[in-house]
Amino acid sequence: MKTPHVRLGVIGAGNVGRALVELLSDGSRQIALVDGATAVLDIVGVAVRDPDTPRAGIDPALLVGDALALAAREDVDVLVELAGGVEPARTWVETALRRGASVVTANKTLMAEHGTELAQVAHEHGADLLYEASVAGGIPIIRALRTSLAGEKINRVIGIVNGTTNFILSQMTSEGRDYDEALKEAQALGFAEADPTADVEAFDAAAKVQILSSLAIGTALHGEPISREGISAVRSVDVEFARRAGYVIKLIGVVERVGANGLSRRTHPALIPVDHPLAAVHGAMNAVFIEGERSGPLMWLGQGAGGYPTATAVLGDVLHAARNRVSGRHDVPFSVDYRLVSVDAGDLSSVFYLSIDVRDEPGVLAEVAGVFGRHRVSIQSMEQSGFGQEARLSFLTHEAKARDIASTIGDLGQLASVDSIGASIRVIDGGVA
Amino acid sequence: MKTPHVRLGVIGAGNVGRALVELLSDGSRQIALVDGATAVLDIVGVAVRDPDTPRAGIDPALLVGDALALAAREDVDVLVELAGGVEPARTWVETALRRGASVVTANKTLMAEHGTELAQVAHEHGADLLYEASVAGGIPIIRALRTSLAGEKINRVIGIVNGTTNFILSQMTSEGRDYDEALKEAQALGFAEADPTADVEAFDAAAKVQILSSLAIGTALHGEPISREGISAVRSVDVEFARRAGYVIKLIGVVERVGANGLSRRTHPALIPVDHPLAAVHGAMNAVFIEGERSGPLMWLGQGAGGYPTATAVLGDVLHAARNRVSGRHDVPFSVDYRLVSVDAGDLSSVFYLSIDVRDEPGVLAEVAGVFGRHRVSIQSMEQSGFGQEARLSFLTHEAKARDIASTIGDLGQLASVDSIGASIRVIDGGVA
Repeated sequence: MKTPHVRLGVIGAGNVGRALVELLSDGSRQIALVDGATAVLDIVGVAVRDPDTPRAGIDPALLVGDALALAAREDVDVLVELAGGVEPARTWVETALRRGASVVTANKTLMAEHGTELAQVAHEHGADLLYEASVAGGIPIIRALRTSLAGEKINRVIGIVNGTTNFILSQMTSEGRDYDEALKEAQALGFAEADPTADVEAFDAAAKVQILSSLAIGTALHGEPISREGISAVRSVDVEFARRAGYVIKLIGVVERVGANGLSRRTHPALIPVDHPLAAVHGAMNAVFIEGERSGPLMWLGQGAGGYPTATAVLGDVLHAARNRVSGRHDVPFSVDYRLVSVDAGDLSSVFYLSIDVRDEPGVLAEVAGVFGRHRVSIQSMEQSGFGQEARLSFLTHEAKARDIASTIGDLGQLASVDSIGASIRVIDGGVA
Repeated sequence: MKTPHVRLGVIGAGNVGRALVELLSDGSRQIALVDGATAVLDIVGVAVRDPDTPRAGIDPALLVGDALALAAREDVDVLVELAGGVEPARTWVETALRRGASVVTANKTLMAEHGTELAQVAHEHGADLLYEASVAGGIPIIRALRTSLAGEKINRVIGIVNGTTNFILSQMTSEGRDYDEALKEAQALGFAEADPTADVEAFDAAAKVQILSSLAIGTALHGEPISREGISAVRSVDVEFARRAGYVIKLIGVVERVGANGLSRRTHPALIPVDHPLAAVHGAMNAVFIEGERSGPLMWLGQGAGGYPTATAVLGDVLHAARNRVSGRHDVPFSVDYRLVSVDAGDLSSVFYLSIDVRDEPGVLAEVAGVFGRHRVSIQSMEQSGFGQEARLSFLTHEAKARDIASTIGDLGQLASVDSIGASIRVIDGGVA
């Protein structure tokens, strides 16, 4: 029996693109690759901005300058889109899908904003749209949600899906760094951009929350806003308080069922108990923690970025697309549950950590406690540390609505005895054993 | 288009079998199940020892007494084998495969001893043999190895794949229990059998190491022995020393490439650094940690046993088998790399922890150190704690061959000044960040 060939077009030759070409060209992997794809994989073109600049490890004859033309070429069976951003990537992907080619992409922004419509285009044209590398880099979480956990009801997903913020928070925890120091260190090491907004203000994590929610719960992908809080307000005193209380602070993305048809999708920093598996996710690692109704807790951990880890995720998708192509089939797109209604993050209850700097004067604590009481926020524990004329009050509340915490903070800000109010950070309950 | 039907026969109605029937009969999951399988799933028979005893949640009309007859029935498209043990399970599975029905099994012993030959039978008859639930219960590790990581070169797998021993060691760590106390507690809670040998002496873990090695590296499955050490020699003093030195003790199963064609497969207790993700695997949880050449470190964590978690893994396989059946295809069996040669565990180097009780007399330490030196084992650190006429010496060595550690212990046992020698436990190096 002759082994069939599947022809690949690759758009982008950055870290991931170069690593992918290297993996596909590695002779020692050929047998495994052909087995995995049930086909020989041939790269027929690599689209780059400047095709005349040589790229180490890529045959110069493969380099082309026109990505749209590559997407449209009839001899490209699988298009691999590694350029990122919405346009022109959306056009390239749609062009390939409309002529029945499958697409593998690592593009989280594109999937978060246009995933549902592109999945529909793929399905109508008998093609696959695969995007394992768009969330949590090298961790094969998307295939697990689509295959192994098909038929399982997932109640909550908690992801550490942004390596930059996890690195910053890890440095603040293990090295006692300030936020600004840790951010500069992340920038110096190439873990953070010169403008870190997308990471530290959780735009990146929010896009990944969109994609995870579509697969874990069945929500549409068209850029509906996610309640979004980043880490720029987290201070070293918060990290230190968390440590003493048995927690670490992590930026998490959450997808959670609320009641029968409610859904909360949000990102925020959180205090995680030190014995929770998510607390062991250090540095630039990513992890996705899932609570299934019958499977119980499940967690995946791995590298969330980097050329090679991301390329292995892309490669897994390429093999899957090739296998489907050879057998003349394609995956069914994720189903969308249109009954789901977004629940406002303000309506959700949690234990909160709050810290407030006040003048160390008689009656101040009673005044502060009065404000908590008026907003029905009851206090679980309080720690007071004095410094000169000032005192810092650190609170853990009992379960309270985020809305009530926000109005408590608003009123505290009006008190003459309150100098400043620090971060308010949710506490994630429970370990796993 | 009419939705096709796929007919299931289930052998066994214990915890897993009953949970599976419940999941398949749950109306709220029907849409997801039909989507996942691209078919309606009908249970046509459930084989049990005594079909006249009613089972809660199972239609009495489905109960049959003859498992072999169920496996042979022409109207069973997918046989689910949940009975366990080698025979008669092997005969039932082979009977179904030989008539082209697919088989889903949770049977680790059967797969470890006959997996390669049964996979070949399945392939020859165009059927699937799926066994996600045979390793690490509800964790979808097998599908990840077969799909997402196809084409990746995996250098090392470390699994915490036995919940009983992990529970015992967790209780020794967190509650300061003795081994015997913790074992009794595990037995009282139903985590350990009355005869705990299969768990504590790592026979169970060794079977799972066989299966993981076949998928991660490509070894045959026919019961080749695994180097096997259990946890019955681990004492609370060892756990306490590990804690002071920044480690926790876990029973691990290891599959590791050694050089170009060497392979080590073994189980033993190990000291794991507290900041390693495997250290966060508490109680009866399971985890599999993988080091891929390009993917970097990856870890899966979840419930290793229990009716519902295991049933979700079985269900994922049932959906996959049904989907393949509807599209008239089957998975390619894992490929076997016959060049691989087993490396003796004695030839492998590691840092070791050793503890020795000696008479507290002048010259004893020099005598002990002399024995280490004669076997080329050099000492990284030593802690001495005295009690009365005795002293306990706790050592961490530099990297040393297991064979040299064994002969060191042999010679130490000959010294008149040495009263007893405790566990020798390997140290796993490095955290993950």
